[in-house]
Amino acid sequence: MRYELYYTPSNQGRGEFVRLAFEETATQYLDVARMSGRGRGPEAVARFIQNATLKHPPFAQPFLKAGRRVIGQTANILLYLGPRLALAPKAQAERLWAHQLQLTVADLLKEIQDTHHPVAHGLYYHEQQAEALTYTRHFLAERLPKYLGYFERVLGGAQGRGCMVGTSLSYVDLSMFQLLEGLRFAFPQSMQRVESGYPAIVALHDAIAVRPNIAAYLKSERRMAFNDRGIFRHYPELDALGS
Amino acid sequence: MRYELYYTPSNQGRGEFVRLAFEETATQYLDVARMSGRGRGPEAVARFIQNATLKHPPFAQPFLKAGRRVIGQTANILLYLGPRLALAPKAQAERLWAHQLQLTVADLLKEIQDTHHPVAHGLYYHEQQAEALTYTRHFLAERLPKYLGYFERVLGGAQGRGCMVGTSLSYVDLSMFQLLEGLRFAFPQSMQRVESGYPAIVALHDAIAVRPNIAAYLKSERRMAFNDRGIFRHYPELDALGS
Repeated sequence: MRYELYYTPSNQGRGEFVRLAFEETATQYLDVARMSGRGRGPEAVARFIQNATLKHPPFAQPFLKAGRRVIGQTANILLYLGPRLALAPKAQAERLWAHQLQLTVADLLKEIQDTHHPVAHGLYYHEQQAEALTYTRHFLAERLPKYLGYFERVLGGAQGRGCMVGTSLSYVDLSMFQLLEGLRFAFPQSMQRVESGYPAIVALHDAIAVRPNIAAYLKSERRMAFNDRGIFRHYPELDALGS
Repeated sequence: MRYELYYTPSNQGRGEFVRLAFEETATQYLDVARMSGRGRGPEAVARFIQNATLKHPPFAQPFLKAGRRVIGQTANILLYLGPRLALAPKAQAERLWAHQLQLTVADLLKEIQDTHHPVAHGLYYHEQQAEALTYTRHFLAERLPKYLGYFERVLGGAQGRGCMVGTSLSYVDLSMFQLLEGLRFAFPQSMQRVESGYPAIVALHDAIAVRPNIAAYLKSERRMAFNDRGIFRHYPELDALGS
């Protein structure tokens, strides 16, 4: 199968959750917006979405071209890829459970994005900083502990199974790795203060980081650095609210 | 199969998207939090989530008990129910497409909820009214037209197919009905002003409303009224921003 990922080259964003699945399984894929040439590059994403002849037009990026199919919504892409990349459980009930967890990761990601963009995606951070401070104060005090406590519970705590679904690696584990990486970048002080309360999440992160294909990817040029344009952004004044 | 829906009895909320699928297909289900007796009532939801022995604990409501299975995340519940209630297409590729659309509906619902709760779910509306005004101004001007324009495009416009996926009724159509109902309740002036731009969405809504099982449900006591505790809330000062 020929896989083409369409996602802005400006930041890791939601595309990274799909990249990690490809990288872990050493699956060939084209990262279309990061390539040059005809039908490639950043403009290819917008051009593709606006194509009026598309049978299944995506609402937003990322989306995946898998052969002739076009699939949107990050969690939906992983639902599709999971069994094909051997990153999902075999039983249907467990696949639905993996997807349910991925949707909960997606909900948390949206709330993380809203820490710096609480009132309008069309405004800059500095134009909504007052609102961002209020949002983030509540996020770090109430929402983040609720999500992390939930994921820790799903992992079974420090004596748990070491992965999110059953006893085998799934795409959800790769997403949990990325989630903790991003949280550490965005909120380094806050995370340092609370991480000891989530030993299973930290252990899962560390186990993923040393998997050979992931470790090689993280060192490669294909892995973008976190920056101030993605979901995870480091603004010290927001991080300070967690102390 | 014995279906039990767990969702707060205080408002329609996300539970309503599941109820509509059951009602359209005249499927028996228990609306647990709205019943009385042992293991029933509003407290049953929280008690269920906190049950430490659950294999697949949901993060939040709604969740569905289907026999011995527990399934969370509204779109995931509909992904599961769709084929079982004959409300999903037969082909796997089309099922994934239906789910992708449902996830986009879910994204819009979250943004609608944020119009009145932009900075913290733990605060009251009147405590974040200033932020709500800013959020809603951008939502009505930029986000809502983007979503509605997308759904109108998926429907193929006024001369389109009349349903969201293929040429048969699916759970996505029921969700689109509820979406327009809710938007009309929350933003009556704004919707009246813009609805003519979305003839296919309005036609779909009207076609769903007169389906016998849906029409009977809407007149029944099982259908709660919209109120000021749900996703869709009517605050005239927010609606006025769309004019």
